[in-house]
Amino acid sequence: MKVALDAMGGDIYPAPQVDGAVSALAEYPDLEVVLVGDRERIEAELKRHPAHPKDRLTVHHASEIITMTDGAVEGVRKKKDSSLNRAVELVKDGKADAVVSAGHTGALVACSQLRLRTLPGIDRPGIATVMPTEKAHFLLIDAGANPDPEPSHLVGYAVMGSIYSREVLGCPRPRVGLISIGSEAGKGNEFTRETYKLLEEANIDFAGNIEGHALFRDPVEVVVCDGFVGNIVLKTSESLAKAIFSWLKAELQSTIWRSLGAWLAKGAFLAIRKKTNTDEYGGMPLLGVNGIVIKAHGNSNAKAIKNALRVARESVRQQVNRRIIAEMSRHHESHQAAPSPAPSSP
Amino acid sequence: MKVALDAMGGDIYPAPQVDGAVSALAEYPDLEVVLVGDRERIEAELKRHPAHPKDRLTVHHASEIITMTDGAVEGVRKKKDSSLNRAVELVKDGKADAVVSAGHTGALVACSQLRLRTLPGIDRPGIATVMPTEKAHFLLIDAGANPDPEPSHLVGYAVMGSIYSREVLGCPRPRVGLISIGSEAGKGNEFTRETYKLLEEANIDFAGNIEGHALFRDPVEVVVCDGFVGNIVLKTSESLAKAIFSWLKAELQSTIWRSLGAWLAKGAFLAIRKKTNTDEYGGMPLLGVNGIVIKAHGNSNAKAIKNALRVARESVRQQVNRRIIAEMSRHHESHQAAPSPAPSSP
Repeated sequence: MKVALDAMGGDIYPAPQVDGAVSALAEYPDLEVVLVGDRERIEAELKRHPAHPKDRLTVHHASEIITMTDGAVEGVRKKKDSSLNRAVELVKDGKADAVVSAGHTGALVACSQLRLRTLPGIDRPGIATVMPTEKAHFLLIDAGANPDPEPSHLVGYAVMGSIYSREVLGCPRPRVGLISIGSEAGKGNEFTRETYKLLEEANIDFAGNIEGHALFRDPVEVVVCDGFVGNIVLKTSESLAKAIFSWLKAELQSTIWRSLGAWLAKGAFLAIRKKTNTDEYGGMPLLGVNGIVIKAHGNSNAKAIKNALRVARESVRQQVNRRIIAEMSRHHESHQAAPSPAPSSP
Repeated sequence: MKVALDAMGGDIYPAPQVDGAVSALAEYPDLEVVLVGDRERIEAELKRHPAHPKDRLTVHHASEIITMTDGAVEGVRKKKDSSLNRAVELVKDGKADAVVSAGHTGALVACSQLRLRTLPGIDRPGIATVMPTEKAHFLLIDAGANPDPEPSHLVGYAVMGSIYSREVLGCPRPRVGLISIGSEAGKGNEFTRETYKLLEEANIDFAGNIEGHALFRDPVEVVVCDGFVGNIVLKTSESLAKAIFSWLKAELQSTIWRSLGAWLAKGAFLAIRKKTNTDEYGGMPLLGVNGIVIKAHGNSNAKAIKNALRVARESVRQQVNRRIIAEMSRHHESHQAAPSPAPSSP
C-alpha cells in the first residue's frame, strides 16, 4: 500500500513530514510512502535517517508550494507543480492509494474535488474528525471542507459519517445528531431547521438536535454540521483543552506542595492530555471524494504525521468509499430521487 | 436599585431564585429584588429564610410559566401573565431598573424586544458573555439572541461589545475580532466575508478574523459572531471544561498515590475550576434593548442567580445603555447613513 505525503504542507515542513514518514514505515511493514515536494530539501532531511527503508520511501519532486495566503481554487489552478497538486495527482493516476497533507485545507478540498471528483450521489465532500467524549468518542463531520453548504449536503455527511463510524470506528449502530441551539425540532436557525427535515427522512438513525453543552456527554456517535460551525467547534475545543492544561500547570507549579502533588498524580494528567491531544488522532479523512484523502493538522509534528499515515492506511484497508457508494445509491433509490447530479467542481 | 427576578425561569425553580436573591441582598445593601412568579410557591421557599429583609424582597404574582417547549414569540404573546412577561413589564413600566431571568432564551429576547424596544441605532439585541483566557477574558457577543442575523447586526454587536468591555470590564482600548475559519480577510463563509467589510469601516478597533484555535490566547477583548455560532462556542466550551475535569477526577481517583497527589494539589484544581465555572459569571447582559436585561444560565443554581443579580446591579450603575445610544448615533453620523431605522419587533 502506497501513500503520497505532501512534504511541503503545514506550518513547518519538510522535517515533521520526513520524520513522521520514517516512523510510520518502521511501524507498518506493509506501508510505502512517497514524499512529494522539493527533492533537495527532503533529501537533506532524510540524511538524519540513514537507515530508512529506501525501497519503501521515495521522493517525487514538486517545485511549488501552496501557501496560506493563496486562494484555495486559485492556488490549485495556478500552482500546477505544487506538492499538494502532485500528491493528489498520484492518487488520481493510480500511483498511490491515498494522499496525506497538512497544508491549506481549502486547497486540499478544492484539488481533491477537481482532480478526483466526488463519489456518485455525493455533491460535496466533508472533513470527518474524531472527538473524545466521556466514555468513547464521536465523529464530527464537516470539520471545515465546506463553509457554505446546502442543507442537502448534510444528508450526505450523515450517511458517510454513519458508514465511517460503523466500518472504521466500530460503532455497530451509529446515531446521528445535528448541532443546533435548543434540542427541539423547531429550534436553531433557518439552516438547521431545513436540515432537520431532510435528516428525518434520510436512511440513518437520526437522534435530532444536539446542543453544544451535550457534545461531550456521549449523546450520539456522529455529529453533523456545516463546515464553518464544525471547524469552530473543533478548533475551539482544541484551544480550550490546551488552555486548561496550561492554566493548571501554572497553578500546580505555584507552591512546593502542589508541585509534589502534581508529581504524584502525573499519570492522570498524561492520560487526559493524551485523550485530548490532537496529535494522537493525527488525520481527518475527507469523505465523499473518489479517493482516500487525509487532512492532517496545519501544526502537525512528526507524531501527528505518523498518525495521519496510520489513518490513511486504515481507510485504504476498510474500503470506506465502496461502502459510501453503495449506501448513497440505496439512499437515492429509496427517495426515488432523480439520478444523482454530476459531481460538482469547486 | 430594584431588580425584577423571574422566579419561574430555568431548569429548576423557584428554590435557586429565592436562595440566590436572599444571598445577593445580604451582599449588596443597595439592592432590592422583586421575585416574579407563583406567589404561593415563592413564599413557601421564603420560609427557609425567616430573616430575609422584607423591605427589600417582595413578590409580584404571575400565574403562568413559559416552558422550553413554547415557541419564543408565541410564548410571549399567549402567556401574558407569565413570570417572564411580567418581570420585563416591571422594567418597561419603570417599576424595576433591571430584569434577570434563567428562563427560555428566545422568549426573553423576544419579550425584551417587543416590550422594551431596541435602542436607537440598534436593529437587533445580542447576548454578551464573558469567557476566560490565558491572562484575562474576552467578551463574546452574540451568545444566542439572534441565530439568523444580517452582517450589519454584527456591527451593532461590535460597537456595544466595545462599550461594555470598556465601561464594565475595564479594558481601556478593546479590540474586536470576528470569529471565522482562516485568519485572512477572504477566509470564512459568505456571512463573515460580508461582515468583515462592514467591520473594517465601523468606528471600532477591528483586529480581523479570529480562528477557534486562538480564542483562549488573549487575541482580542471583544469577539463577535452570529448567535448560532456564539451559542455553540459558549456551550461547547462549558461542556468541554466540565468533561475535562470529570475525566481528570476519574483518573486521579484511580490509585492511592494519585489521590494523595490530588489532595496536595487541590488548590490548583479549585482555582481553574473557578476560572471555568459559569456559576461565577452568572449573568449575560442582553445588549441593545432599551432596559437592562440579564440572561442567567438555564441550569443556574443559587450562586449563579446571585451572580446574575450582581451583573444586573453593575449594569444599572454603569449606565451602559446611555453610552451605547451616544456611540451608535456617532456611528450613524460618521457613516452619513439614513436615520436609524425604527426598532424592529421580533
